[in-house]
Amino acid sequence: MKLASFMADGRDTYGLLKGDVLYEPGAGFRTRFPDLRAAIGAGVLHELKTDDSAVAHAVSSVQFLPPVPAPDKILCVGVNYRPHIEEMGREVPEKPVVFVRFPGSQVGHDQAILRPQVSEQLDFEGELAVVIGKRARHVTRATAYDYVAGYCCFMDGSVRDWQNHTVQFTPGKNFDSSGSMGPWLVSRDEVHDPAALILTTRVNGKLMQEGRLADLLFDIPALLEYCSTFCELLPGDVIATGTPGGVGAARSPAVWLCDGDLVEVAIPGVGLLRNPVSDE
Amino acid sequence: MKLASFMADGRDTYGLLKGDVLYEPGAGFRTRFPDLRAAIGAGVLHELKTDDSAVAHAVSSVQFLPPVPAPDKILCVGVNYRPHIEEMGREVPEKPVVFVRFPGSQVGHDQAILRPQVSEQLDFEGELAVVIGKRARHVTRATAYDYVAGYCCFMDGSVRDWQNHTVQFTPGKNFDSSGSMGPWLVSRDEVHDPAALILTTRVNGKLMQEGRLADLLFDIPALLEYCSTFCELLPGDVIATGTPGGVGAARSPAVWLCDGDLVEVAIPGVGLLRNPVSDE
Repeated sequence: MKLASFMADGRDTYGLLKGDVLYEPGAGFRTRFPDLRAAIGAGVLHELKTDDSAVAHAVSSVQFLPPVPAPDKILCVGVNYRPHIEEMGREVPEKPVVFVRFPGSQVGHDQAILRPQVSEQLDFEGELAVVIGKRARHVTRATAYDYVAGYCCFMDGSVRDWQNHTVQFTPGKNFDSSGSMGPWLVSRDEVHDPAALILTTRVNGKLMQEGRLADLLFDIPALLEYCSTFCELLPGDVIATGTPGGVGAARSPAVWLCDGDLVEVAIPGVGLLRNPVSDE
Repeated sequence: MKLASFMADGRDTYGLLKGDVLYEPGAGFRTRFPDLRAAIGAGVLHELKTDDSAVAHAVSSVQFLPPVPAPDKILCVGVNYRPHIEEMGREVPEKPVVFVRFPGSQVGHDQAILRPQVSEQLDFEGELAVVIGKRARHVTRATAYDYVAGYCCFMDGSVRDWQNHTVQFTPGKNFDSSGSMGPWLVSRDEVHDPAALILTTRVNGKLMQEGRLADLLFDIPALLEYCSTFCELLPGDVIATGTPGGVGAARSPAVWLCDGDLVEVAIPGVGLLRNPVSDE
């Protein structure tokens, strides 16, 4: 299943994607489960496949939102691919490097990413994100995938000078509308082996990043084990797994995103997340 | 005004504190503004003072929640008092050191703070927190206080070994129920000069931290200006301003919180936040 949150007819809603059509659940279903996060938490996503009261929307008529527009937590993992660790001049971490993005920093597919007024150093980071399916605390690696609802593409847009104001990444990772997520959530059953996935990031069509999920320093089960040891992961929570090498900051000369650029994060079998860049 | 969120008769609600009584707004008001965050955002807190339909609850009969139980953002500022910078052996930062706590890491007044299974290094950090009153983006220092709803005590409980797994503080600052906030929000008009406030932290009655808000490296207007430059602050958002010297990790030998301990953060004119410690 591919599941998306979107705006249609002036309302925020969600639905099941089949081909070029989004099927929005009927009003009764949406009263019980007002957003995709609620539907994930209730474990009722499969009911969407047989909802006779669903309303069809052409994909071309909707505006995509992040698949989970307001998760309780977005946990991001830094320096989790060896080539990116080397290009950023960082040490190989012994534990996952975890920072946070707030929902306001993320837009949906095809929405504009904003280059801030106060910086010219907006950089791209293509990633695979995991969306949590059920409450998870003290999870072991062996059972970690049981807690995964699915996957989506993630663009961890980073304002490098603000990221490096201090050792804490928070400011540079949380400019409003500086990152993105989507277009949709692919349910776990459709991705048989996440380690076999390949991720690419293109800017204006030019290949900038290419990574294999098999090269993650801390893989998905390790990340769920680690994060669920300190906090309870809730349905709809997001764990972005990190970015491979090739970011703009590590190039010579550095490549920064500018007004009019187009960023594409592609993970075959998961989706293609595309965002234009606009000045704030 | 003192405003609190609390559980009474099995329901989460909120109200106005007068003496030892909490006045919960009438059902009509709560339908329009279901929680204190909504009431702050709508700018209707003053109406609570003249609500004839309010229901009285003795303070002794309720269970306090964090004043804003589910803010969009909790931004915490590290190393913001010079004595604490020195005791932790850190450099004086040129910009605010901003990290994040999730709502699940915070409990209300009198609720148990949990010492995690996986660490013995649970430490106390008493702080003053600012609660945002209205949407704030690109705010200047000169007008910053216009965006403040009020203040409360904050305990930024820190699991030191997990805080220092990597340079990012996230894991050690986000163990479930490891910090607290409360007991209530004191409205801005009742604190004429935040810089005149004095903060103390006691453990089992023993004075461990004493700080003057006048000693903040980055004061409240500077923090609002900095944070609102990268993200839009929303009503109910929390900015915890940092902790003074005297934390357990900096003592010789180190002092860690244990099952049965009692932590008190007192800021005369704001409140006294008290929490027992229990093993997870």
